[in-house]
Amino acid sequence: MPDDTLLSEAIAQAGIRFNLLCGGQGRCGRCKVIVERGQVNRHSTSRISPIELEQGYVLACQTTVRSDLQVFIPPQEAIVRRLPSEKAAAEVPTLPVECDWQSKPIVRKFFLTIEPPSLSDNTTDFERLKRELVRQHNIRDLVADLPVLRKLARTLRASEVNGKGWQVTAVLEMGTWVDKNAPPRLIDLRPGDHTGRSLAVAVDIGTTSNVVYLVDLVSGQFVDSASAYNAQISCGEDVISRIIYTKKEGGLEHLQRLVIQTINERLQKLAERNKLDLSEIYAMTVAGNSTMIHLFLALDPAFIRLEPYIPTVTHPLPVRASELGIHICPEATVDCLPSVGAYVGADITAGVLSSSMFKTEKLTLFIDVGTNGEIVLGNADWLIACACSAGPAFEGAGVHSGMRATVSAIDEVWINADTCEPTYRVIGDVPPRGICGSGMISLLAEMFITGTIDKSGRINRTLDTPRIRIGQHGPEYVVAWAKETQHQKEDLVLTEVDISNLIRAKAAIYAGFSILTTSVGIDLADVEEVLIGGAFGKYIDIEKAIQIGLLPDMPWERFKYLGNTSVLGAFTALLCRDMRREVVEIAKKMTYLELSADNRFMEEFTSALFLPHTDTTAFPSVMHLLNKGGAS
Amino acid sequence: MPDDTLLSEAIAQAGIRFNLLCGGQGRCGRCKVIVERGQVNRHSTSRISPIELEQGYVLACQTTVRSDLQVFIPPQEAIVRRLPSEKAAAEVPTLPVECDWQSKPIVRKFFLTIEPPSLSDNTTDFERLKRELVRQHNIRDLVADLPVLRKLARTLRASEVNGKGWQVTAVLEMGTWVDKNAPPRLIDLRPGDHTGRSLAVAVDIGTTSNVVYLVDLVSGQFVDSASAYNAQISCGEDVISRIIYTKKEGGLEHLQRLVIQTINERLQKLAERNKLDLSEIYAMTVAGNSTMIHLFLALDPAFIRLEPYIPTVTHPLPVRASELGIHICPEATVDCLPSVGAYVGADITAGVLSSSMFKTEKLTLFIDVGTNGEIVLGNADWLIACACSAGPAFEGAGVHSGMRATVSAIDEVWINADTCEPTYRVIGDVPPRGICGSGMISLLAEMFITGTIDKSGRINRTLDTPRIRIGQHGPEYVVAWAKETQHQKEDLVLTEVDISNLIRAKAAIYAGFSILTTSVGIDLADVEEVLIGGAFGKYIDIEKAIQIGLLPDMPWERFKYLGNTSVLGAFTALLCRDMRREVVEIAKKMTYLELSADNRFMEEFTSALFLPHTDTTAFPSVMHLLNKGGAS
Repeated sequence: MPDDTLLSEAIAQAGIRFNLLCGGQGRCGRCKVIVERGQVNRHSTSRISPIELEQGYVLACQTTVRSDLQVFIPPQEAIVRRLPSEKAAAEVPTLPVECDWQSKPIVRKFFLTIEPPSLSDNTTDFERLKRELVRQHNIRDLVADLPVLRKLARTLRASEVNGKGWQVTAVLEMGTWVDKNAPPRLIDLRPGDHTGRSLAVAVDIGTTSNVVYLVDLVSGQFVDSASAYNAQISCGEDVISRIIYTKKEGGLEHLQRLVIQTINERLQKLAERNKLDLSEIYAMTVAGNSTMIHLFLALDPAFIRLEPYIPTVTHPLPVRASELGIHICPEATVDCLPSVGAYVGADITAGVLSSSMFKTEKLTLFIDVGTNGEIVLGNADWLIACACSAGPAFEGAGVHSGMRATVSAIDEVWINADTCEPTYRVIGDVPPRGICGSGMISLLAEMFITGTIDKSGRINRTLDTPRIRIGQHGPEYVVAWAKETQHQKEDLVLTEVDISNLIRAKAAIYAGFSILTTSVGIDLADVEEVLIGGAFGKYIDIEKAIQIGLLPDMPWERFKYLGNTSVLGAFTALLCRDMRREVVEIAKKMTYLELSADNRFMEEFTSALFLPHTDTTAFPSVMHLLNKGGAS
Repeated sequence: MPDDTLLSEAIAQAGIRFNLLCGGQGRCGRCKVIVERGQVNRHSTSRISPIELEQGYVLACQTTVRSDLQVFIPPQEAIVRRLPSEKAAAEVPTLPVECDWQSKPIVRKFFLTIEPPSLSDNTTDFERLKRELVRQHNIRDLVADLPVLRKLARTLRASEVNGKGWQVTAVLEMGTWVDKNAPPRLIDLRPGDHTGRSLAVAVDIGTTSNVVYLVDLVSGQFVDSASAYNAQISCGEDVISRIIYTKKEGGLEHLQRLVIQTINERLQKLAERNKLDLSEIYAMTVAGNSTMIHLFLALDPAFIRLEPYIPTVTHPLPVRASELGIHICPEATVDCLPSVGAYVGADITAGVLSSSMFKTEKLTLFIDVGTNGEIVLGNADWLIACACSAGPAFEGAGVHSGMRATVSAIDEVWINADTCEPTYRVIGDVPPRGICGSGMISLLAEMFITGTIDKSGRINRTLDTPRIRIGQHGPEYVVAWAKETQHQKEDLVLTEVDISNLIRAKAAIYAGFSILTTSVGIDLADVEEVLIGGAFGKYIDIEKAIQIGLLPDMPWERFKYLGNTSVLGAFTALLCRDMRREVVEIAKKMTYLELSADNRFMEEFTSALFLPHTDTTAFPSVMHLLNKGGAS
């Protein structure tokens, strides 16, 4: 084999299927192989960590052959395929926060054997149950609301086991954040022993996507999850249009019905898949932005939209599931986590909770990109937060070929700089239906780095490729031809209008970073850790997010992916009463910086309306890459 | 004027209208006059107290003239006319118990002036309200449920007074018995200042009659009352038949609807009469027997009826008015007082509360005659109670000409021993429509004392009077001819079947006294005070009740009329949180004696099935009267 042959070519010549996703530009890092024996010349080691270097990893497209080689090629599947189903898409989340969930669960079950009444022991049914809870489990002061009392007499008598008295499982809510000393509350009673598991759900109500986690409070384990678009999307894509919709007669109640319907449908799906009765679900925690929580509870959100942006309440009381029409145990508590203000909601306090940021000494920047971008800066001592209206583009909405990050979404794209031909990865390894948020970021970065668009986002129509054309909505780039797609009807494209939306979204978020750090006199470079939450937090490609100027240009090791921190926070608060109280403290501690009252925001936003930014010195790694080859 | 002329005849001869209600037998005491000058011979002074004797009172029918006289005749109206309208029928009740209602009201109103939000003070609406409650009234930790939060934003902004900010009245529930440290709860918010009064209602749900008291918590005063038959009567007259009715599909819910409808209609009446909005009523306490409370809350009463007679609960938690469909402020608490057991209900604990019996050193017997008869014996140290099924006869139901004690009910009767002709008094001084409970007792006693019936209740058909005849239901006595009545259609009669019902009712109650005193080793004669509560407690004629053996034969001064102690107890508990907690202590302290488990009860009951009783030595005053003249 001749010297200076690229290792990637050599592998292809050996007849091995091998993907060069970025077209062999050394940018995607997906052609990593281990040179086990022999000599090579490494022309670039970008994308290879120091540890990998020691292990002998090279980029096949950036390495030339100098002798006979023995090369190990890692399974390509592991790289290309991800998320074979919606269920696995959620994976089993691990809580970043430690909590003592066994000592302070929200709900506990107790098995009781009860002697039936007689003329000489004619205590009432409820007092009898109370008495046995004290005797058998030392649980005192039980209270019960009407719906449970209404079925008490029949359930107890139906639980009689011949000669052994009544045998029942009492399901008790052990307290809420409202009152530390509140008595335990009987929320259900079932004949027989059901103490093996105790189900509950954590919910994230996103403006675009809703996620439901099913959790077993006995094992403290995640069981399953389900997610879907928020059905309110039919009434407006962002919070502002939803709020405007509530001005219609019955609009507020309609939006409430829609989101509750979305949640109920997900619950139904979880019940079917896990073969359980929804009435066995005994608690629900809910996180979401302030408008979503207002709509969920049918609280009037009108004044969230109007200056000076006032929600009705930041911390509503727990509500019974039956009061909202949530199809779990009717007496179960639905508990919405606290928010800080109109645009820093319970999704953010939940995020800070699940991120452990509230316990760290490190100067930390937490960012949650959903339909809005919310940013928190601080550590264990102080927290300051702001919100910037990013729009739903990063959630795959409001963009021509956008879709949620689920099976059949393109979630990563590489563009060959020479041919402008894209290579993409699809969630579930099936023909694509659309492009999700992380796919959009990836695509935008690739287009920029390869010069397919310029720094202001205009498509370079001088390039000789059928991928670039004038479509119905103006200039566009074809990511996948119709024949490659699932429905084989329409090409998947990114239009110049889409690009403009994406740039505005990233600019809003970057302007948020700038204002937040400036307002406390800190340089962005001093941030020790950047935590990325939000719906696509787990899948965002940091390098590409930096390339488009969505994230600050810092060493990669400072970034940490947390996934959907909103639902993880709801999960944490669901597991443990101490954590539920902790999130109250987080909300109290957090200072809210209202950007609309801040003239500097518009300036920063305008400066960020370029790729990666007007101030290119803030993006040295990107400039380095561009100077090496890419765009103008 | 000749000597030995009866003073009553002399008065009649002088042309003065003068009623001899008992026919001049010296029994009714209604012909009392004052001899201001001149000589008379008093032949009897029964019915005249020692003080009245000193003041010169004589019974005109028992006094002969010995000289020229100057006589003062008190206004006959004051004696004959009573209760000119339903409203006045309730009179203004005075609470026998002292309580510090001003320091611990259930509900308080606070007037607030609030600075509207701005960008520099963008606290949420609810937190802003909380903040001002602390600043202006030192009220902390306010909580609020969804329905109030839902209208918060609009109400606050509607309360803006030009240049003076928001001016609102916050209505706060200051706590319930459940948790002493529970935070104050916002139950309403109204633009303007409404702190002048704070309305609430106390309700007694009787099996037969329901009573609603309207109360002002600011002044601590009774405002008005309304009462009506419990609409459940259409589904059964006593608790047992109501419980049986609940076995029908939807029967329980139907009975609940009926009683709530009865209460709502009374509330509507009070609102119209007092020109108020029902949503201004901010609290409700409810007393009633255990079955009535179960039906009111739609709790399954099935096992109250079946041995060993087990209610679901003795002390249900407070409920929101909206949850029950009670038409007061939806967020107002409806709080049912605690019961002791299946047949000693919240009407009795309420009775003991309002009677002050729980504070006295005296050995006290408390009796509440409603549809059931409940009896409590004890003092500040101990309380023992039992219940005996008296049936609804004393409430005017289940008796041919029976009716409630309201306008047009005959409530007292005197029979002329010679002619068998009755004289009666009608509530409201109008033509009669029927006979109420106290009228029944009065009538039964008169018939017995005059020999119109014998000691077993059989009508003496040998008497030569058209008043005694065989009617559709067997032998009967005509109290009022059709032409005297309001509808002029039917004679008002008392049948032998009615008499038998009344005797069984009084026998059940007297047997209760006997068992209760025997069970604690006390002689009935040692009882220092007898408190009479229940719907007709205020109007029962003690002498006549003793004559039929309903009450024990004791000096009259030991008896005290308390009126409807059930609603008075609800009123007391409504006024003051300490009193609300006191009634919990009363319920805890009270021992319940189950008569159905007691063989002695049947014996005592059988002995009491005579007038006044088989053991005539227990009724010396009655035997004395009979020996003087009357019956066999």
